[in-house]
Amino acid sequence: MIKRKAAIGIDVGGTYAKVAAVVAGAKRGASWGRILLQSRIFSSPEKGPARFIANLGELLDSWRGRGIEPAALGLGLAGDVDGCAGRLRYSPNLRGWEGFDFKTTLKRRYKKPVIVDNDANLAVWGAYVTELKKKPANVIGVTLGTGVGGGLIINGRIYRGSTGSAGEIGHMRVAIPGEPCHCGLTGCLEAYAGSYGILRTARKVLGRNPLSGQALRRLCPDLEDLEPAHISAAAEQGDAAAREIWAQTAQHLAVGLANLVMVLNPDVLLILGGVSRAGRWLTDPIHKFFATQPFKIPFQKSMLKLADNPNAGSVGAALLAMDE
Amino acid sequence: MIKRKAAIGIDVGGTYAKVAAVVAGAKRGASWGRILLQSRIFSSPEKGPARFIANLGELLDSWRGRGIEPAALGLGLAGDVDGCAGRLRYSPNLRGWEGFDFKTTLKRRYKKPVIVDNDANLAVWGAYVTELKKKPANVIGVTLGTGVGGGLIINGRIYRGSTGSAGEIGHMRVAIPGEPCHCGLTGCLEAYAGSYGILRTARKVLGRNPLSGQALRRLCPDLEDLEPAHISAAAEQGDAAAREIWAQTAQHLAVGLANLVMVLNPDVLLILGGVSRAGRWLTDPIHKFFATQPFKIPFQKSMLKLADNPNAGSVGAALLAMDE
Repeated sequence: MIKRKAAIGIDVGGTYAKVAAVVAGAKRGASWGRILLQSRIFSSPEKGPARFIANLGELLDSWRGRGIEPAALGLGLAGDVDGCAGRLRYSPNLRGWEGFDFKTTLKRRYKKPVIVDNDANLAVWGAYVTELKKKPANVIGVTLGTGVGGGLIINGRIYRGSTGSAGEIGHMRVAIPGEPCHCGLTGCLEAYAGSYGILRTARKVLGRNPLSGQALRRLCPDLEDLEPAHISAAAEQGDAAAREIWAQTAQHLAVGLANLVMVLNPDVLLILGGVSRAGRWLTDPIHKFFATQPFKIPFQKSMLKLADNPNAGSVGAALLAMDE
Repeated sequence: MIKRKAAIGIDVGGTYAKVAAVVAGAKRGASWGRILLQSRIFSSPEKGPARFIANLGELLDSWRGRGIEPAALGLGLAGDVDGCAGRLRYSPNLRGWEGFDFKTTLKRRYKKPVIVDNDANLAVWGAYVTELKKKPANVIGVTLGTGVGGGLIINGRIYRGSTGSAGEIGHMRVAIPGEPCHCGLTGCLEAYAGSYGILRTARKVLGRNPLSGQALRRLCPDLEDLEPAHISAAAEQGDAAAREIWAQTAQHLAVGLANLVMVLNPDVLLILGGVSRAGRWLTDPIHKFFATQPFKIPFQKSMLKLADNPNAGSVGAALLAMDE
């Protein structure tokens, strides 16, 4: 059996963790991060972090049996992460994991370099390295999932701020007072562009007129099961209600992104996550909004890019661990 | 006569320009930027940039007569500046100055290093160097004047973004739809925290009740002449209406600053400009707002500091030119 050294990237969300064994390599031209093996394991936050580390260990043992030798480990956690200490400081989705020393635990077990970071930072890094051929200096990445996260690349490196908490784009206020957000405030970007916010908008739009959204209702007869993917599919079929839902979502996203363009004047705005599959239903209204802004140059120079790599988080974690 | 080499800092606003001859030196302990000579000349934007350069030349000739030899020149302009090209790209306050090649013109005339930058960037740099003893890595500076500008220090250096336009903090939206802003949009931070926004708030608060604001009305009998300084003085005298005006101003400023803390997680938030003389009437409500934020750490770690150095712009311009 051929043995290969690979960086292990682990992207831990509230429900499951994606694990990937990654080697530096070419993919679509000049980019990087070839996945040799990948898998998904449950995060099971309620069972605690030690149990998660044990489950991860079983997976990596089985990968060793297939010739994959960990050379470095990168761990992305959904929450406010202290990267130096390798601990979670605050996480609504991984409650009870705060304070656990992931860095030392993984270092002791694998005797390899370990990095621990915010999951959105790593996903943005993964997309930056694998999806942008020229490496622009300044990139703002927004991850659209249940919640809305973000990561900033400044001068070609992840910018973490003074306590490692930078990039919490989802909790900029884009409406005041606005709709409730999971964080406890109202009017945050996440309250509109996170999937729960999008579904709230959908219920409002569909509730206004029971005859609207025919295509959407056909695709998802029980609105309790509605997902952003249904709304995208219905929008593609010409469903006016579905398009209205995306238009409202895009409007709030545009306000948030415009704030960021005014403050950070980036080269690229990267939109990550499954919701970005809405494609032009999301980007067209944002481009239109940008075109109305009085400060022209920063908006003309900010390229908006959808980066729908579902493995950006685990690949980014592995790539950054490799750099250690 | 003793001849001294000094960096010349020029801070050009819509009405007048502050010019300072600065040498590196100690001031209040470890800080820098001693002013040898300073003066104010009219900007007279309507007469064009060549006339301004000629007026500046007369001033600097007279300073030569007093032994000041320019060693470098730093020029801050109110507007969107292309620092590499040394030109203004867009400025509502210096209309008609766009496109003029300040850098080459000044270099030809003085044969010394010249930098051209946005005025708020330079003011924040000036305050950063002269007022913060330990140089924190990441600082957000907000300049409160007629308009609201900003400058970002990231990893100890001015961050300019991809086209030099970064830091336009005044045009983040903090209310939607909100009050009209000079930029043509509504709800921008400037529409509340710029002096014209503060005066609009004052008219609303005073208009609601003609018996309110007794101290304020005494200090400024003709409300047409009202200035932020009157509101601060009345607030100090216990005037409830004046305090209400600052509370409303501070509330909008707090929303904008909280957005910036979530995104940039800075060490220090610097508030510059004359309006910052409102002191605790501005900072107390901001601290209270920060204390209610669900993400604790970034707010606990961001120090809010009022930096009321009226010469921060010209000193910052000189200091940065010196570094060239």
